[in-house]
Amino acid sequence: MTVLVVGSVALDSVETPFGSAENVLGGSATFFASAASLLTTVQVVGVVGSDYPVDKLAPLVARGVDFAGLERAEGESFRWRGRYRHDLNTAETLETRLGVFSHFRPKIPEQFRKAPFVFLGNIDPRLQLDVLGQVDAPKLVACDTMNFWIESRRADLIALLRQVHLITLNDAEARQLTEKANLVHAARWILDHGPRYVIIKKGEHGAFMFTRESVFYAPAYPLEQIFDPTGAGDSFAGGFIGYLAKTGDLSDANMRRAVVYGAAMGSFAVEKFSNERLLGLTRAEVDARVAEFRKLVAFDTEMPA
Amino acid sequence: MTVLVVGSVALDSVETPFGSAENVLGGSATFFASAASLLTTVQVVGVVGSDYPVDKLAPLVARGVDFAGLERAEGESFRWRGRYRHDLNTAETLETRLGVFSHFRPKIPEQFRKAPFVFLGNIDPRLQLDVLGQVDAPKLVACDTMNFWIESRRADLIALLRQVHLITLNDAEARQLTEKANLVHAARWILDHGPRYVIIKKGEHGAFMFTRESVFYAPAYPLEQIFDPTGAGDSFAGGFIGYLAKTGDLSDANMRRAVVYGAAMGSFAVEKFSNERLLGLTRAEVDARVAEFRKLVAFDTEMPA
Repeated sequence: MTVLVVGSVALDSVETPFGSAENVLGGSATFFASAASLLTTVQVVGVVGSDYPVDKLAPLVARGVDFAGLERAEGESFRWRGRYRHDLNTAETLETRLGVFSHFRPKIPEQFRKAPFVFLGNIDPRLQLDVLGQVDAPKLVACDTMNFWIESRRADLIALLRQVHLITLNDAEARQLTEKANLVHAARWILDHGPRYVIIKKGEHGAFMFTRESVFYAPAYPLEQIFDPTGAGDSFAGGFIGYLAKTGDLSDANMRRAVVYGAAMGSFAVEKFSNERLLGLTRAEVDARVAEFRKLVAFDTEMPA
Repeated sequence: MTVLVVGSVALDSVETPFGSAENVLGGSATFFASAASLLTTVQVVGVVGSDYPVDKLAPLVARGVDFAGLERAEGESFRWRGRYRHDLNTAETLETRLGVFSHFRPKIPEQFRKAPFVFLGNIDPRLQLDVLGQVDAPKLVACDTMNFWIESRRADLIALLRQVHLITLNDAEARQLTEKANLVHAARWILDHGPRYVIIKKGEHGAFMFTRESVFYAPAYPLEQIFDPTGAGDSFAGGFIGYLAKTGDLSDANMRRAVVYGAAMGSFAVEKFSNERLLGLTRAEVDARVAEFRKLVAFDTEMPA
């Protein structure tokens, strides 16, 4: 099945302790599509400026990503400049230039409106709500958010929660949104406000999926080298929703597998700058890493004879 | 099989956001024995002062803990006073009074010298080395350590590494000891210096067990309430080594199970002050939590039909 993603398509400039990259592909929709397209068909809705090097999207087009919803507006593309020090868990934003993104009003092309899976990347909750008015009863709607919207658009975000099946957010955002320090309490608060699934991402410490009935935990893969953490969360979402869309199966067993596909994609994303590693990836490599995750946590409870 | 633990037997005074406790049982050997004694026979070597309320050890004696190696010296017992704020991962030490512990020279009673499992709690590496001269070819020797010894007794600690099969330490300590920021690199450095197993504890973010051949990860249990984190690491060690001693099986499958028993004991330890929760615990409760851990991380990699 197809997945529709609405989010940013940006140009990132990133410094890490291991090197730097200038004006490389970035943005939530880009990372999401880079991961999800390895698994299923992806439709992108976003906006870029007249300066965007659209030819750099060719590898994604080759993988079947449909950019019919990528508007080109007069002006500058969204640009983010950031730096990671040795604590690779935290990005330091050096500069954000929203450019044409500041006037973004997502318009879902007619042929995208029946997408059964929808991911609302991290944009203004008012726009996320607006997108939901343009789509036709998707099987699963997931959204992401960030501290900025939790602070500035709290009421809209809570209205959005009522209309999504699933939310992904990091541990700090979950605590900020719910005003609960304990993540189990935070997850319950969110479940009480609408979503059936809450995914709390803890960066290098893995991710939880909470439902009313169960909790599942996938670790982050213990990588020998983390090159550039940018986009790990959106790559996780792309792997996760992409796997669900590919299989069309929302059983608990398949949701758990999907979380691990998300964790696998997140672990690949950070191995190179931008979406480079995701673009070079094969399905066999992803399956192999998923098998590694299984070995990483596998134990049985039987007593020896 | 029996496990011998050498470590501190202390009196703790602890403040947390949820309450406080004065002069309650503490120390690495106490927490270790409280967890391990639910699984196997434990022998304790340590020292207390003339002020120690030894009657409070009665519940451990009732569980079969042998305190024949607990020396009573003239003077004050080891006392620690600490505080946890809302970030329950970090203890703030308000006061440490070593008392008789500052002159502790472990003397292993004759009848303890053949213990097949030995845990060298967090004491001066010179004393840990000295203990190894007093025991008779144990099947498994494990040690713990801390930042203070890594700084002040580095050469002794490295000499100790050559003589132990296993070390437990937390992520910050692993980085400090090895001067490697990446935990995979840090674990490899330690494996290169002697131990066959390295357990890196990440508090509320779980624990890794590294060998040359494999890596295993057990999450921390997502508790609804963490009451007092004191002793979680030693309770983990007690559950882990206690399970190994109980089963006498050092296969990879059983080592993994043992890590989860450790994680389960750590998760119980923090539910009440001091060793209260561990003392009230039944084997059935521990097995049930181990089963919960399995549900928490369980997924299968088969594709749906």
